[in-house]
Amino acid sequence: MKKFYVAKSRRLRSTPYTSRIEKQGVSSYTIYNHMLLPAGFNDPLEESYKHLKSHVQVWDVAAERQVEISGKDSAQLVQLMTCRDLSISKDGRCYYCPIIDNQGGLINDPIILRLSSEKWWLSIADSDVILFAKGLATGYNFDVQIVEPKVDIMAIQGPKSFALMEKIFGKKITELNFFSFDYFKFKGTKHLIARSGWSKQGGYEVYVENTASGLELYDYLFEMGKEFNVKPGCPNLIERIESALLSFGNDFDNNDNPFECGFDKFVNLDSKVNFLGKEKLKRIKSEGIKKKLMGIQFEANEISLSSSLNIKDEKNKIIGELRSACYSPHFEKVIGIAMMKSSSWNVSQSVKIEINNNTFNGKVCDLPFI
Amino acid sequence: MKKFYVAKSRRLRSTPYTSRIEKQGVSSYTIYNHMLLPAGFNDPLEESYKHLKSHVQVWDVAAERQVEISGKDSAQLVQLMTCRDLSISKDGRCYYCPIIDNQGGLINDPIILRLSSEKWWLSIADSDVILFAKGLATGYNFDVQIVEPKVDIMAIQGPKSFALMEKIFGKKITELNFFSFDYFKFKGTKHLIARSGWSKQGGYEVYVENTASGLELYDYLFEMGKEFNVKPGCPNLIERIESALLSFGNDFDNNDNPFECGFDKFVNLDSKVNFLGKEKLKRIKSEGIKKKLMGIQFEANEISLSSSLNIKDEKNKIIGELRSACYSPHFEKVIGIAMMKSSSWNVSQSVKIEINNNTFNGKVCDLPFI
Repeated sequence: MKKFYVAKSRRLRSTPYTSRIEKQGVSSYTIYNHMLLPAGFNDPLEESYKHLKSHVQVWDVAAERQVEISGKDSAQLVQLMTCRDLSISKDGRCYYCPIIDNQGGLINDPIILRLSSEKWWLSIADSDVILFAKGLATGYNFDVQIVEPKVDIMAIQGPKSFALMEKIFGKKITELNFFSFDYFKFKGTKHLIARSGWSKQGGYEVYVENTASGLELYDYLFEMGKEFNVKPGCPNLIERIESALLSFGNDFDNNDNPFECGFDKFVNLDSKVNFLGKEKLKRIKSEGIKKKLMGIQFEANEISLSSSLNIKDEKNKIIGELRSACYSPHFEKVIGIAMMKSSSWNVSQSVKIEINNNTFNGKVCDLPFI
Repeated sequence: MKKFYVAKSRRLRSTPYTSRIEKQGVSSYTIYNHMLLPAGFNDPLEESYKHLKSHVQVWDVAAERQVEISGKDSAQLVQLMTCRDLSISKDGRCYYCPIIDNQGGLINDPIILRLSSEKWWLSIADSDVILFAKGLATGYNFDVQIVEPKVDIMAIQGPKSFALMEKIFGKKITELNFFSFDYFKFKGTKHLIARSGWSKQGGYEVYVENTASGLELYDYLFEMGKEFNVKPGCPNLIERIESALLSFGNDFDNNDNPFECGFDKFVNLDSKVNFLGKEKLKRIKSEGIKKKLMGIQFEANEISLSSSLNIKDEKNKIIGELRSACYSPHFEKVIGIAMMKSSSWNVSQSVKIEINNNTFNGKVCDLPFI
């Protein structure tokens, strides 16, 4: 597939780590929240995938921007934006929260960090949630402050991330529960560190507010990580599809609702809390959904998807659309995430996909793949 | 400067014209409203600039997405979002409108098309204005519908655009006033066409709703345009900087207010209309601004800007930041758009800029350059 260059400009914001990863061999970028997000290094994607599953990587994921909502009415506004019940949330915890509009359509799926009952960070996927929050806050006349703070996340991911982070921050960091965060000192500077990250291989995310210290930590991770075979990396397409870590804009968008994306456990319709689209989602639930995200596997050696691809049944009827896909070294075939019509939710149902005038046969399966 | 590839995915949406421009030699993309926007073709930027100023080009600018706001309260919502008085607006006209938040900070600078008093299109720059509109509509409980319609703009730009469009649509299209729009038939299909576009070389934008007809028109423009030396193209960095067509995200962002960007004539503080940030802007105006966009010229043969660059005075004090820049064949030096502190608004003031450890001398000037 032909490749195209990124035309850089101030509008596609660099991160504090950009000059470092460009020295370390980044080869491609995607744009995420108007910012450069590395998408590949000189190593082939498959090499990086194997490395991520065996060792430890440091990722520039500053493009996971924060929307900071603080003030007297902040809890009310944050709750209004998500169908997940946050009335029982706790300081120091991360919550995966679908954000929906008043029609029940998805707007984003951030991790929400509760810094306190009056200060929240929404660690967002790729859409301007800050504008939604500002619009709501103005319309409802909420007493809140909404800003994008200067926070540039670096992620430490992979099975050896625990040993590397322990070497730098001490035993205490290994005791952090999944989706908890706390403050840890690096050479005198406190950093908010969460046990989280956009892979299923384990690890941490450092929410860097002090850039100078963050850059020093970045370099130190590579110095201390030599014995763990540390490498630079980025969210890995193969690993994230195998693990079915869904991507807003790729696997789902504003035309999809949380039930269609399998987010049922994050939709608390029976709670007492007030959120946008609640009545709409109740109706959708009682009427039942007509499409949902499923896995697809098919016999092919490669794929490079840049838009949706129709999925057809034996009679050439369109039964769904493939939205993300990759060649999986684990399954030795192409796997992908598809929005499938309700007539075709049967696992093992045969499907056909046409790529460059070649037809490939495959089948429907459950998510996640692994 | 090292180049990097775009990692394509469904999230970076293709346009109906993408397969065509990729055959026609597009070489680089930027991402704009989560969509591919061509940024360069195989011809060097300077060649394309000269061509645009002499002939006619067809541009895939589908990334200029529309936010459609319709319904009983649509005029009220649209007015709330912009500091420009739309109470005297007319159907069939385009209005350049800064959109601001309640702090007076810029959110976008769309062209607003009044289709009727109850149906508006905001033809937006690169930020999710739809989320701001949805938030406001929900909070104020407005009776409106807000959608992103399937509209994919192609632009016909350059001095010969008038002759080419007349050849296809007849004499009537040459009588369209600047920033007016009307409907014109192409082989039986009506298209909304505006006399507008993101260059100062004259031309039209076709708001394609019927994709099949739009693609036929795209091909037909190249067929009929041979005698006018038609070529594919895209918004040209050199031409737009020389003309000081400002770019949201590049030249200004949410940290800037309309007065700092020279948008004074679009800020109607004395009008009776109600818009967000009105009181805040009154205060800013009476207190006076402390920074504003100015032109910079300096003696260099090339520049490739990917983030802001500090501008210093003779004493090495930072007096501004360069936000966009290019080598101008017209001036035979580098020109750029900079946010300058109030101490340095004197035209001809000397400035210094450091690029790759080389110091260049330049001076401040007024905008636009040409």
